[in-house]
Amino acid sequence: MRARKKAWTEKELATNERFVHNPTEYKGRWKAYFANNNPLHIELGCGKGRFVTQTAVQNPNVNYIAIEREPHVIVTGARAARELDCHLAFIVGDAEELEEIFAPAEVQRIYINFCDPWPNKNKWAKRRLTYHRFLESYKRLMGPGGQIFFKTDNAPLFEFSLNEFSDNGWRLKNISFDLHQSGYTENIMTEYEEKFSSQGLPIYRCEAWLM
Amino acid sequence: MRARKKAWTEKELATNERFVHNPTEYKGRWKAYFANNNPLHIELGCGKGRFVTQTAVQNPNVNYIAIEREPHVIVTGARAARELDCHLAFIVGDAEELEEIFAPAEVQRIYINFCDPWPNKNKWAKRRLTYHRFLESYKRLMGPGGQIFFKTDNAPLFEFSLNEFSDNGWRLKNISFDLHQSGYTENIMTEYEEKFSSQGLPIYRCEAWLM
Repeated sequence: MRARKKAWTEKELATNERFVHNPTEYKGRWKAYFANNNPLHIELGCGKGRFVTQTAVQNPNVNYIAIEREPHVIVTGARAARELDCHLAFIVGDAEELEEIFAPAEVQRIYINFCDPWPNKNKWAKRRLTYHRFLESYKRLMGPGGQIFFKTDNAPLFEFSLNEFSDNGWRLKNISFDLHQSGYTENIMTEYEEKFSSQGLPIYRCEAWLM
Repeated sequence: MRARKKAWTEKELATNERFVHNPTEYKGRWKAYFANNNPLHIELGCGKGRFVTQTAVQNPNVNYIAIEREPHVIVTGARAARELDCHLAFIVGDAEELEEIFAPAEVQRIYINFCDPWPNKNKWAKRRLTYHRFLESYKRLMGPGGQIFFKTDNAPLFEFSLNEFSDNGWRLKNISFDLHQSGYTENIMTEYEEKFSSQGLPIYRCEAWLM
């Protein structure tokens, strides 16, 4: 990363109050953090954050936490959200840390949008955010009624994810092989999704529910 | 149908002992018909019957019933199977009649291969063999542990079927977006599948299990 970008990232991280730098301190107390009784939805791998920010603005009765591993990416989203009227916090972190941040059944929904497909299945499947080890972790965070809302442009990842969800005991819903042609009207596009679908390629989507 | 073909069809139907012309009489008594205690697998829409015949020859410990609506198509399969050593019967019929032919929990597996996709979803979805009304019927035929093994080349039908299975409470397994590249080694190709996949197009497959 260039020096100027790095300095800007560090300044944004230090001054933007939407960042939670000590998230483990709020484990089990996120309602207190947001000072309301709303349900909590999180996005894993929020990138530049457009999806979660738009979603948060449109849904004032839900609390949102956007999680992203790359500081220089997440700062863009956090900066855009600075002055908006919504319940939205940003955390620099990854899926491995979720159970240190959230107590059992504290989260009601997880969004996973266009996560890294890790294309060599035999070698890298364990790193996919829909690998069953992660699904077990999401189960503990959410409990019955919990939902994963999943989108990808990658057909092999989608096929893999459907099998992982189903084998791991999640109920699949609203499976779509071409989201933008499916009649689903609530879609909010990510930056990546807009770029990709403008090339005419299909977006896959499904929901996985805990019964 | 030309007269000669029609005469041949009628002769085959009349003389081939693999046909069961009064299947409702065996409802609840198919083990007696086959004179063994094997599980019973059926294929809905067997066409010219190559799939079910090869499957029956390879699995002597299973009884098979192949069902097809078109007499002039099913006779080809029944003729090829005349002298083979397998437990295989043919019935001219369709999915609407299943519960007159089989008693509850009498069937352990249903194969549905390349069924008519009825492409206008809004108008014709009810006719698809994976429409939930049919799934309810299959449930009654099979009971817990029952399985549907489903293949198609039609992506919209596959998407529709995954949703119907899941919404209707079946557990999906072994979902494949490209069967012939999936490493699944037990595949037996239908006539249609061989023709279609020789053009390089993918075959979709899944299993739906009753828990």
